[in-house]
Amino acid sequence: MLLAALMSFIYKDGVTTNILLSGILVIIAGGILMATTKNHKKELNKREGYLVVSFGWIVMALTGTLPYVLTDSIPSFTNAFFETMSGYTTTGASILNDIEVIPKGVLFWRSLTHWIGGMGIIVLAIAILPLLGIGGMQLFAAEAPGPNADKLHPRITDTAKRLWLIYFGYTAAETILLQVAGMSFFDAINHSLCTLSTGGFSTKNASVAYWNGQPVIQYIIIVFMFLAGTNFVLSYFAFKGKVQKAIRDEEFKLYFKFIALFTIIAALIIYFRADFSISSIDHPMIYGKAEASIRHGLFQVIAIITTTGFVTADYTLWTPFLVVFFFGLMFLGGSAGSTSGGVKVVRHMIMIKNGFLEFKRALHPNAVLPVRYNQKSVSGNIVFNILGFFILYMISFIVGALVFSMFQIDFESSIGLSASSLGNVGPALGNFGPVNNYAALPVLGKWWSAFLMLIGRLELFTVLILLTPFFWRNR
Amino acid sequence: MLLAALMSFIYKDGVTTNILLSGILVIIAGGILMATTKNHKKELNKREGYLVVSFGWIVMALTGTLPYVLTDSIPSFTNAFFETMSGYTTTGASILNDIEVIPKGVLFWRSLTHWIGGMGIIVLAIAILPLLGIGGMQLFAAEAPGPNADKLHPRITDTAKRLWLIYFGYTAAETILLQVAGMSFFDAINHSLCTLSTGGFSTKNASVAYWNGQPVIQYIIIVFMFLAGTNFVLSYFAFKGKVQKAIRDEEFKLYFKFIALFTIIAALIIYFRADFSISSIDHPMIYGKAEASIRHGLFQVIAIITTTGFVTADYTLWTPFLVVFFFGLMFLGGSAGSTSGGVKVVRHMIMIKNGFLEFKRALHPNAVLPVRYNQKSVSGNIVFNILGFFILYMISFIVGALVFSMFQIDFESSIGLSASSLGNVGPALGNFGPVNNYAALPVLGKWWSAFLMLIGRLELFTVLILLTPFFWRNR
Repeated sequence: MLLAALMSFIYKDGVTTNILLSGILVIIAGGILMATTKNHKKELNKREGYLVVSFGWIVMALTGTLPYVLTDSIPSFTNAFFETMSGYTTTGASILNDIEVIPKGVLFWRSLTHWIGGMGIIVLAIAILPLLGIGGMQLFAAEAPGPNADKLHPRITDTAKRLWLIYFGYTAAETILLQVAGMSFFDAINHSLCTLSTGGFSTKNASVAYWNGQPVIQYIIIVFMFLAGTNFVLSYFAFKGKVQKAIRDEEFKLYFKFIALFTIIAALIIYFRADFSISSIDHPMIYGKAEASIRHGLFQVIAIITTTGFVTADYTLWTPFLVVFFFGLMFLGGSAGSTSGGVKVVRHMIMIKNGFLEFKRALHPNAVLPVRYNQKSVSGNIVFNILGFFILYMISFIVGALVFSMFQIDFESSIGLSASSLGNVGPALGNFGPVNNYAALPVLGKWWSAFLMLIGRLELFTVLILLTPFFWRNR
Repeated sequence: MLLAALMSFIYKDGVTTNILLSGILVIIAGGILMATTKNHKKELNKREGYLVVSFGWIVMALTGTLPYVLTDSIPSFTNAFFETMSGYTTTGASILNDIEVIPKGVLFWRSLTHWIGGMGIIVLAIAILPLLGIGGMQLFAAEAPGPNADKLHPRITDTAKRLWLIYFGYTAAETILLQVAGMSFFDAINHSLCTLSTGGFSTKNASVAYWNGQPVIQYIIIVFMFLAGTNFVLSYFAFKGKVQKAIRDEEFKLYFKFIALFTIIAALIIYFRADFSISSIDHPMIYGKAEASIRHGLFQVIAIITTTGFVTADYTLWTPFLVVFFFGLMFLGGSAGSTSGGVKVVRHMIMIKNGFLEFKRALHPNAVLPVRYNQKSVSGNIVFNILGFFILYMISFIVGALVFSMFQIDFESSIGLSASSLGNVGPALGNFGPVNNYAALPVLGKWWSAFLMLIGRLELFTVLILLTPFFWRNR
């Protein structure tokens, strides 16, 4: 918040003291908590791990509302909480009808919530969740750099330092490139913060479609969305010179293949079927229709798979196929250990491999056929974790849609809102599609959406386990 | 077909010879096949089992078109194939715009395809699929009556005789009761054939809504839909006097609880939110609004859960909630070992239990916590089977919807068509909802729908394994 106050001061947007006050209030609140509690150096056990992660996120979202509320940018607490939760969970769904009138300092804070949330999730996914044994995340625990202890503390600090350096470096690189390509510094830094976190907040009402006349800007964002959706541990390997090791990673290969395959499909459909004129978005064909089709196809496929949710085109208007297509992609997600949400590529890979083996097992019931990942056989427990995660994900999705439909929201919109909130994507379908926002949701719908974002972001088990009776029993 | 010809003769509908000719043609075709092949008494191996089941079903659907085509009731071969496949798979989706003008003999044949398909599926589910090791069906293999051999032949004949007797008995009982309640004999026998098979074809354009003025008829159908969605082995136990054993079955208990819970929800929503006047269906309130709400709620919940697909009300018009609600129910399915389609209650139960254990495993990673079903612990392999089945089901569903959307069918309709075809339900959503039919589907869409019906009916693996390269390798 102090950084946002600084930005506010530089751009003289007139709300510097309000943002500064937010920061000071949070410092005071934190100071009181620190002073009135003790044992800060105690090792956490598993149960405390779940509590700290879940409630930490909620406390962050509560305090993060201050800059919105105190500057009157978002006077309603519900809206401010929604925007903050959408920020920290790197969802990118917004209730702002006019983004461009919001003071620059507040917009910068909004982008920062993405970036901070993304930072948190990298460490969570690579260092903490594997130790908590959640949804197969143990799978690449051994791959993470740093000492392989089973206590939380040493691992976090060590891993965090290395990965945050990469995260920070990518963000700086994208900012510079975007500025070189013609963006203002303010737009460049904000979009970089929101790209690396696979968030999707934009400083423009039209999102990245604002730069439809400058394809280079969109290609730069494509590259960094791709990197943000890649396991950051692989970037670490690549920077250490082990490029081969990074490229040979099975999840990375499948992530790349998914993007290639789905881009080809989307680009072909856009080229042959889409009518660029019926969208409310301006689509100047700078380099012709073929380039525009490939660019929009690539951009939207990566934006949805990495759950960034930036928008260059309203694909929902073009053909019914693209609606179902992008709806399906919302369940894909980027790589584990990245800032993306959704089910994640590694889980899909294990599920596909296991499904294929299931066919073989049907023919040869006595053969022992373990799932293999990166040349190692995966333990049955981890496969169970992953299958269990997917089923819980689908149950959460259908319950999510049911609750939205209670607010008289139509089928397509309810289904889309649930998939998008849970997968931390951002744009949904129907009335909450790529060119709309979430402002029209009723108050309870906003809270429900924020809840889905939270459980989706924390890999379901982390939050939902707090709702089981046995978590609170026999402590 | 000879039975249908007899019915045609009795009702003098003028197409008796055409239906008779169909029957004779099939007998001749079968005779030629019998005469030109040999080794009819050979034991089948697993691989041959898959082939016989899949191709057997396709051959049935091909020959079953004859009565439609030769009587000119459905001149188009695509439409006739669709109607036959929808019949044998007990889906109940129809391409007939006016059912009531079709000759009675042909309508009877149409209902018979349901009944024959239902017969086939009982034996398939209880005796054959468990031996093929498909999707956890081994789970209740031991529960089935008859000798527990691992060769297919003796088991089938033995089990089949007992279960078909019950199936036949239920059908006869429903026919008598429906007639007593005021249906004509023809309507009674047709609706009974279509109830016990959880099919859903009706002799009336309005489906069972035709009898909205005679609630007793609808209650009788409710009871028999419930029985048809129950494992027929449990009915066998009950008739042998072991009622306790039947009632204590865990799947039965959950099936009952699901129906109770969802009926309460549906009835409350209908009572407080539904506007009976906006439906195109006539809803006379014979015993008041409360009774009508409970009846329509109960009827539609059971019709969708058991995948029968009879319609008494157009729930898609009443509230958005009910659309998402019934969409979700399409994935539920009745009990395994019944004639219903969908995922089946027993699989949901294992998935829920395993999901719950997954939470416990996260807290106690070293504890051995097996899933238990009917007081026995379920082997990890079977749980794997079931989780794998569900994931394959969801993949088939989303691919199914994608293909429908390629024909310019909107999101809601595509999603609904896929879920309904795959689950053998019948009514879908949007343009293919409860008061519509499938006539408006393009030709390729009808073939795709028929394919989804087939793979859904045969528990996915049976058909899809034929598409894997290793099935054809190393024979």
